[in-house]
Amino acid sequence: MSTDLSRFDHVRAVRFDDPVLYLLDQRLLPAKREELQCTTVVDVAQAITDLVVRGAPAIGITAAYGTVIAAQQRAAQGGDFFTAWSDDLKLLAAARPTAVNLVWAIEQIKQACAGLSVEDVVRVARRTADQIAQADLAANYAMAALGAKLIAPGSGVLTHCNTGSLATGGLGTALGVVRAGVAAGSIDRVYAAETRPWLQGARLTLWELMQDGIECELIADGAGAWLMSQNQVQWVIVGADRVCANGDVANKIGTLAHACAARQFGAKFMVVAPWSTLDLNMASGDLIDIEQRDPAELLAYRDTRVAPEHARAFNPVFDVTPAALVDVLVTERGLIHDPTTAKIAELAD
Amino acid sequence: MSTDLSRFDHVRAVRFDDPVLYLLDQRLLPAKREELQCTTVVDVAQAITDLVVRGAPAIGITAAYGTVIAAQQRAAQGGDFFTAWSDDLKLLAAARPTAVNLVWAIEQIKQACAGLSVEDVVRVARRTADQIAQADLAANYAMAALGAKLIAPGSGVLTHCNTGSLATGGLGTALGVVRAGVAAGSIDRVYAAETRPWLQGARLTLWELMQDGIECELIADGAGAWLMSQNQVQWVIVGADRVCANGDVANKIGTLAHACAARQFGAKFMVVAPWSTLDLNMASGDLIDIEQRDPAELLAYRDTRVAPEHARAFNPVFDVTPAALVDVLVTERGLIHDPTTAKIAELAD
Repeated sequence: MSTDLSRFDHVRAVRFDDPVLYLLDQRLLPAKREELQCTTVVDVAQAITDLVVRGAPAIGITAAYGTVIAAQQRAAQGGDFFTAWSDDLKLLAAARPTAVNLVWAIEQIKQACAGLSVEDVVRVARRTADQIAQADLAANYAMAALGAKLIAPGSGVLTHCNTGSLATGGLGTALGVVRAGVAAGSIDRVYAAETRPWLQGARLTLWELMQDGIECELIADGAGAWLMSQNQVQWVIVGADRVCANGDVANKIGTLAHACAARQFGAKFMVVAPWSTLDLNMASGDLIDIEQRDPAELLAYRDTRVAPEHARAFNPVFDVTPAALVDVLVTERGLIHDPTTAKIAELAD
Repeated sequence: MSTDLSRFDHVRAVRFDDPVLYLLDQRLLPAKREELQCTTVVDVAQAITDLVVRGAPAIGITAAYGTVIAAQQRAAQGGDFFTAWSDDLKLLAAARPTAVNLVWAIEQIKQACAGLSVEDVVRVARRTADQIAQADLAANYAMAALGAKLIAPGSGVLTHCNTGSLATGGLGTALGVVRAGVAAGSIDRVYAAETRPWLQGARLTLWELMQDGIECELIADGAGAWLMSQNQVQWVIVGADRVCANGDVANKIGTLAHACAARQFGAKFMVVAPWSTLDLNMASGDLIDIEQRDPAELLAYRDTRVAPEHARAFNPVFDVTPAALVDVLVTERGLIHDPTTAKIAELAD
């Protein structure tokens, strides 16, 4: 990890100080910086459901420590440990649909602990959770270096949602590449799309970059295409909630619109996704069930009603960008230009 | 005007009931439906400045009736009518510095009244204002009929910003086509993009369509591409602030992003613009100076701060969709498919 890059990486979303899991409460940012303390598996699952923590890798790490807290407490309680712990894991796994890392992290813990004694489960779950967190951070540093090398000096970049330290074990995926590009001096302009309806760009990405002294400008989601048409954006750099075997990318709603504009105006489209985000069992994006959330998220802003009474809204959380619109997929295993099923399978081996 | 269509056209933004001009106060919508009464030219100018009325055609009609109120009162006062009335017209013209229709409408009145007696000015100003309002409404009905014929049964449509009765003399431009398509039974789904940062889609378009019993769903601006990729939108239908001689279209920020997505996924892109919107002196869109507004419009929502303190934002109000992305331009003079300078010039003659 380069010293230069860590200068731009101060924030941490998830912090386990045994036996308490501290989550930086992202619902309160940027107005307040406050950690929520989780001391039970129910706390952890609820925090994931309530979006205290968000971002696929951060959710995975949170869930991993959730299994640790569960194991510690079930072991202390006595009784049928394995049935109780297994129920805890199911509770965690159900906390948010779509986020593949949630299930993936829990699966890692389960596999590592298979056939072990209760005492060993407690120990190995903790060690595995630490490894998941450290591996994520290491992957982000690796991806940041790989992705930033593609960015020519004088570039403008546009990012969507929040894919930074707040969404991961640290540094970030897409935002890690942005940080590395800024550190390398190749990025001149950073635009953050506000990311309706939750405004993660406005609330979180700006806050995070400002913590690290990185200059950035907020734009309306719909202004990205205009910036690209004006040659102000050379790279759209986004993360992924899930990457399919063929390279189709599920990510925050609004991503696909940027990808279409990038293709239209010759900007490049980069997806930065740790290998854990790849779902090789999902052949293509049309198989993904897109989560829809409460229309109220669009009809009101916090407690202020915007739309008329009885108005309806359609509020999908994710969209799917077809692989054909992805110029490069950045993983910690390497770059995949113009991703296809064959190219991804090659790196999977 | 077909009976069927007028069933879907109840709202009026501007209503002159001699000697009072009633403006539906769009600042209060959708929470409150309230008309502001303007009884002096100062009232009218202030209402335009304060955004009680918005939308280029509606502003023009409002200003036209402002000149009528001014003429009536100056005539009743006696004194130097022409100097006083001329000052009133200057006051009106300055109410919104960049509104082209405002100056255009006042100019129409001035020309019609040139060289007339005071008594005749009062009468002719009124008649001309009525003509401006009626011509706008008639153009909208003509465009609605032309545009709706292009829409195949079972279609979904997406519109952006507010281009309806609230923005015009009635029925609307893009929203007029939507109304006509619904009346004809060819439109099955209407999506309204919320239109950041001012949320005209959420606040005004939904309200207006709901007044007429037209089913519609609000979406985030960034969700339009996803709907198109899922074959839920066959037509993107938007208005225009200005159409250049070559068919490039300046419209509310976010329009271009929808156009890029439409092209990518095979949805059609329709621009509905009365001939008064065509600026044949502007050869192409790259010559348009794009207005930028206060970054605070993105950094905060009404009085609630969203982004961190000291955050920066880039807030262009309009974007330019190149003619190459416009499938059809609908004017009251006829349809222009795949607009070019030559095709537009032909209809101009």
